[in-house]
Amino acid sequence: MPPQALLYDKVAEKIGALIRRGVLRPGDRVPSLRRTSRQHGVSLATASQAYITLENLGLIQARPKSGFFVRYQEKLQEPELSKPPVSAGPVGMSDIVSRVFSAAMNPRIVPFGAAYPSAELLPVLKLNRTLAAISRSMGGQSISYDMPPGCGALRREIARRALDSGVTLSMDEIIITCGGTEALTLCLRAVTEPGGIVAVESPTYFGVLQTIESLGLLALEIPTHPRKGMDLDVLEKSLKKNKVAACLATPNFHNPLGSLMPEDDKRRLVEMLAKKEIPLIEDDLNGELHFGPERPRAARAFDEKGMVLLCSSFSKTLAPGYRVGWTAPGRFHEKVKQLKFANTLATPTLPQLAIAEFVKNGGYDHHLRSLRRMYAGQVQRVSQAVTEHFPAGTRITRPAGGFVLWVELPGNADSLKLHAQALAGNISITPGPMFSAKNYFRNFVRISCGHPWSPRMEEGIVTLGNFTRNLMK
Amino acid sequence: MPPQALLYDKVAEKIGALIRRGVLRPGDRVPSLRRTSRQHGVSLATASQAYITLENLGLIQARPKSGFFVRYQEKLQEPELSKPPVSAGPVGMSDIVSRVFSAAMNPRIVPFGAAYPSAELLPVLKLNRTLAAISRSMGGQSISYDMPPGCGALRREIARRALDSGVTLSMDEIIITCGGTEALTLCLRAVTEPGGIVAVESPTYFGVLQTIESLGLLALEIPTHPRKGMDLDVLEKSLKKNKVAACLATPNFHNPLGSLMPEDDKRRLVEMLAKKEIPLIEDDLNGELHFGPERPRAARAFDEKGMVLLCSSFSKTLAPGYRVGWTAPGRFHEKVKQLKFANTLATPTLPQLAIAEFVKNGGYDHHLRSLRRMYAGQVQRVSQAVTEHFPAGTRITRPAGGFVLWVELPGNADSLKLHAQALAGNISITPGPMFSAKNYFRNFVRISCGHPWSPRMEEGIVTLGNFTRNLMK
Repeated sequence: MPPQALLYDKVAEKIGALIRRGVLRPGDRVPSLRRTSRQHGVSLATASQAYITLENLGLIQARPKSGFFVRYQEKLQEPELSKPPVSAGPVGMSDIVSRVFSAAMNPRIVPFGAAYPSAELLPVLKLNRTLAAISRSMGGQSISYDMPPGCGALRREIARRALDSGVTLSMDEIIITCGGTEALTLCLRAVTEPGGIVAVESPTYFGVLQTIESLGLLALEIPTHPRKGMDLDVLEKSLKKNKVAACLATPNFHNPLGSLMPEDDKRRLVEMLAKKEIPLIEDDLNGELHFGPERPRAARAFDEKGMVLLCSSFSKTLAPGYRVGWTAPGRFHEKVKQLKFANTLATPTLPQLAIAEFVKNGGYDHHLRSLRRMYAGQVQRVSQAVTEHFPAGTRITRPAGGFVLWVELPGNADSLKLHAQALAGNISITPGPMFSAKNYFRNFVRISCGHPWSPRMEEGIVTLGNFTRNLMK
Repeated sequence: MPPQALLYDKVAEKIGALIRRGVLRPGDRVPSLRRTSRQHGVSLATASQAYITLENLGLIQARPKSGFFVRYQEKLQEPELSKPPVSAGPVGMSDIVSRVFSAAMNPRIVPFGAAYPSAELLPVLKLNRTLAAISRSMGGQSISYDMPPGCGALRREIARRALDSGVTLSMDEIIITCGGTEALTLCLRAVTEPGGIVAVESPTYFGVLQTIESLGLLALEIPTHPRKGMDLDVLEKSLKKNKVAACLATPNFHNPLGSLMPEDDKRRLVEMLAKKEIPLIEDDLNGELHFGPERPRAARAFDEKGMVLLCSSFSKTLAPGYRVGWTAPGRFHEKVKQLKFANTLATPTLPQLAIAEFVKNGGYDHHLRSLRRMYAGQVQRVSQAVTEHFPAGTRITRPAGGFVLWVELPGNADSLKLHAQALAGNISITPGPMFSAKNYFRNFVRISCGHPWSPRMEEGIVTLGNFTRNLMK
């Protein structure tokens, strides 16, 4: 081993010891490379190599623009690939959804339930000021209908941003919708008939399952890996066995898994479906919430046949209550546009104009940079607290973006019971069965990290850990 | 005949002669009662009785808060009861809809097409100022989700106003939607299955037909009287012959007919449907746009079984681009609420808050009073111009509210050709076949009176009259 190697190994070992002894605690900032190079009398290159070693050991973690931090101790394993029986079934929803939503509006409840961004993380004043200014300057136009496909200025900005996800769009391909939910609704309606089968990740966002159910469609749950997304081998086999009308997937930072589908898989998914003329509805709502330096590509980037209906919104990144989403539905454009007329006629005018202006003048990008840091930090803090306070045997996801964690409870603890107990104690979580058309994932919960970390939240996690312990069989 | 009768008859005759000789022209204000009593040396009571006589003769017309005006000469007859063959059929829509909508956004085109209120008639500044103030005072809440059923303050105001239409609602019965279109969509989805038959007025608003088509439903067109609304005898027979899943009707100021269903008919309609357990979706979007002094009751006022799903919005009266509608879906409340979650998740927050405040502080009522006068005046002006410039044999409706006219062209003139020629000449109208699932009403057009009267519009009517003359067979 050359002396150089010895040097960086030694530096890595010293820092590793500080971490193991608890001098540097999970979440703490590690000294900068420059400082380490001075402290240990080594070159910057050596310090850098030491940090790479520490990263590979899983001891530290880079956060974009913030430096290196001690990683939460990987005492908890990741959940495994989900194993739902792959057969299509109707979606059965309970009133738990309502309870989760109304808990989210109650400030007395610790908000681990609904996956909303806290308004504290959003540029409320700036955006509303933009809206007020536009309402003055636009006059009558601000109050008039903005008929489909919607605001041109906004569609132009969306088309520009799509380039970052590897997608070339003209503004004419985009239709603005009342939030991402309407985009998914219209795309599903455009490509399916009632009774049709829709392949989805399992687990997946309960809102998607509700929409599928409400349209009289059947969900076909495909096993999904907590880091790599939908299992394409299983999907391929399922497509042979089932007449699938559409696939609805979230390759980037899936809710609740946080999974990020590798590019090769994205390409394979798009090609596999295109070969069978099956449309892919891609929900890219979290694509811009990456913790790493790169915005991942959308699966749509690999679409050569107009078979990917790309959907997204500004609800998780900027302004949930503005209700502005969009879709670029490929070859289904005319159909989706007609459905938009028939479903809600038009999208509110002022929110579109305000977001267009906020994106155009750079406010959105500026905000996104800090939002990503905040989400990354919050995910790490909650993850660390779960690691410390939940019983051994708990498993937890390692999302690379977004702001939710998917937690597997040990000892077959019942998440519906945990949800009820927690709510009685003013803590909201989302129980696993909500994420499955067939109510699988009874021993899972989703924990949202959309709110700034606080002592009250730490207490909440402690309480949840204790409840879980009592529920173990 | 007592001398008193002779007196008022004489006065009426004198004024009638002035009208017939053209001294007082259609649209002119008739001298006030006080002035007439002075001019003719009669008591106020006698003058008043004379005016009632003139009204009964159809020579003058009262406008709320404005006095008496000479009525347009009834050279043109009303259209007759529509006679569509009553059999259910799929709805076939063309791209004419898009053309009508995009013409409405083009300020160079004379706007007789889409039935929008002109922004000039709306309290743009005041409402937007309210919105801006709320966005400042509410902070984070203004940008956050407002989950179904939607803004409580707004639902409270809607419940209060419903009393004026004879409807007792609690705010808990109301669900806010993205405009009236979403209200109709959700209600239709709540009470039908694809393939189901929906009884509608014929003609009826093409947006309703589009929504019915998009949901895979069939429209059953019921003959409808231009002043009294749906023919209930025919409906009754049709209900025996067809398995009707729902009836969708606009008893108050129907679009395009402007018809106002008499109260006895409203009661009969509600009871007839309830007996067969058929839900009535009541679109009351124009209910507050009455030209007479009284806001008409909604059919829902006669509902004792929770079978009337009442829908309305603020789009025709206040702010089309705010996209705020609502429904009180009776016994289908839970189902509609679930569908709202699945369809668009939530309605935009700020527009709801702004409208709630505007209604609460009296701004809405104040605005409505002048809006009704303006719509009444515009309808009369357009009607008069059509009377003067269209060929003999043209028939025209006499709406008692709303802001559209339904015109029957003489000599089988083709309204699709008229629409194309007019558009080439920068005039937008809506051709009759759009108002029928089976494209009846080929010799009808709807003329919107949503914009302030102007010489340019007068020219437009002259041009349309000439085109019509050339299209007569």
